[in-house]
Amino acid sequence: MEPAHKPLVDEDSLPSGYAYPRTPGMSVLLALLGVVEVLGVAAIAMVCYWAAHYRGGFAWDGSGQQFNWHPVLMVVGLVFLYGNAILTYRVFRDQVKFGVKILHAVLQMTALILSIMALVATFDFHNANGIANMYSLHSWVGLTAVILFALQWVLGVSTYLLPFARRWIRTWFMPYHRFLGLIIFGMSIATCLMGLTEKLLFSMDADTYSTFPPEGILVNCLGLILVLFGGFVGFIATKEEWKRQPLAEEQPINMSIE
Amino acid sequence: MEPAHKPLVDEDSLPSGYAYPRTPGMSVLLALLGVVEVLGVAAIAMVCYWAAHYRGGFAWDGSGQQFNWHPVLMVVGLVFLYGNAILTYRVFRDQVKFGVKILHAVLQMTALILSIMALVATFDFHNANGIANMYSLHSWVGLTAVILFALQWVLGVSTYLLPFARRWIRTWFMPYHRFLGLIIFGMSIATCLMGLTEKLLFSMDADTYSTFPPEGILVNCLGLILVLFGGFVGFIATKEEWKRQPLAEEQPINMSIE
Repeated sequence: MEPAHKPLVDEDSLPSGYAYPRTPGMSVLLALLGVVEVLGVAAIAMVCYWAAHYRGGFAWDGSGQQFNWHPVLMVVGLVFLYGNAILTYRVFRDQVKFGVKILHAVLQMTALILSIMALVATFDFHNANGIANMYSLHSWVGLTAVILFALQWVLGVSTYLLPFARRWIRTWFMPYHRFLGLIIFGMSIATCLMGLTEKLLFSMDADTYSTFPPEGILVNCLGLILVLFGGFVGFIATKEEWKRQPLAEEQPINMSIE
Repeated sequence: MEPAHKPLVDEDSLPSGYAYPRTPGMSVLLALLGVVEVLGVAAIAMVCYWAAHYRGGFAWDGSGQQFNWHPVLMVVGLVFLYGNAILTYRVFRDQVKFGVKILHAVLQMTALILSIMALVATFDFHNANGIANMYSLHSWVGLTAVILFALQWVLGVSTYLLPFARRWIRTWFMPYHRFLGLIIFGMSIATCLMGLTEKLLFSMDADTYSTFPPEGILVNCLGLILVLFGGFVGFIATKEEWKRQPLAEEQPINMSIE
């Protein structure tokens, strides 16, 4: 009797060394991706609610309402979109590689544009109010992260999207591209945590913060959610078994006569 | 003519599948380890100088001088010793595995003890001065990191040092042990950055901080050095080629008859 579910490909007939795409724990991967999206959306909702409800809402006029765009755009860009961009190859594992590359580059480019808008929001606000720029540790680590992120994007596009780089360069650079991407992502989240700390201490003093006001608890929870988001993205992105495997049509054809 | 440097082991005579310890880029590894130690010692020197020169030195009497132990013990324990403990297997790659395990566990235990002393220093200071505990994002992320660190230490010792765990459990848990260790390490550094930010804004106000005073620049540089230290430790710890290989005497003996 025929088995109910016949495999589409008779794997024994494949040439030796052929890696047919397999993903152990695919359901766990999907569940964790769900957790990542829930955390990411929660973080965006919380930072928007913080800015809108506690910090006076949004504007683009050099006021504190312009500054409010800074945390929102950074959480959307350098955390949520960046995290999702990191995961594209693991999420769209069955799609053609070139399409996934384009999506990865476009998501990262959007993240970069949003983070530059976020920087402009802060510099405008500072300049309009006679506040010095770039004096805090938050700004030092944060600007370093954005500059590295821009460099990484340019290097990534020139190595992997444009057709100029030799195959050995692409292979050699890949571990560095992946490591640098994760480090910059970690720096972004650490910078968010410093930014939340700073903004709370600017908006209310420590005496108020230490009475556990709702705003303080909201922002602390936002910080923890950013840490969790980063942790889950890092876990999915580094789990070796979940690495995208080449599709059948991407496999080199074995021309040797054995 | 004999070659000048005769290999101690004739590798061709080894059984097939035998992995003789090899380390590509060993000199690069050594150079990067040097960078890590220089950064780590610089961070300790800077946090000590900050506490001693700008913040009134050290005591254990509930005063701000007791609090000063907090950043020093955290940088020594949860950053410097933790980072070095992460690297033990890659540094002492030619030593017997059991000895390296003991060193790894002892370094992490020392880091844990120092971080608990650092917590006591802060709680004592808060309680003696009527300051609330555990209200800041710094404290939420930091205490989570210390609790996870303690759990990870207990799990590590019971899985890998005590003789009870089955071999498959040791193998199965290893990637999680490594990942969790690196995440907690990242959380520790992010918590340091928040702590530096907080303490600067408690000690001087933003108006002073924004005039680029020497203390602010010192602490910002300390923060950048902590980020660099974390980045280099992470790079060395995740570079696949630098993973410790089993020594000759640790290889299972192939008893099959071929």
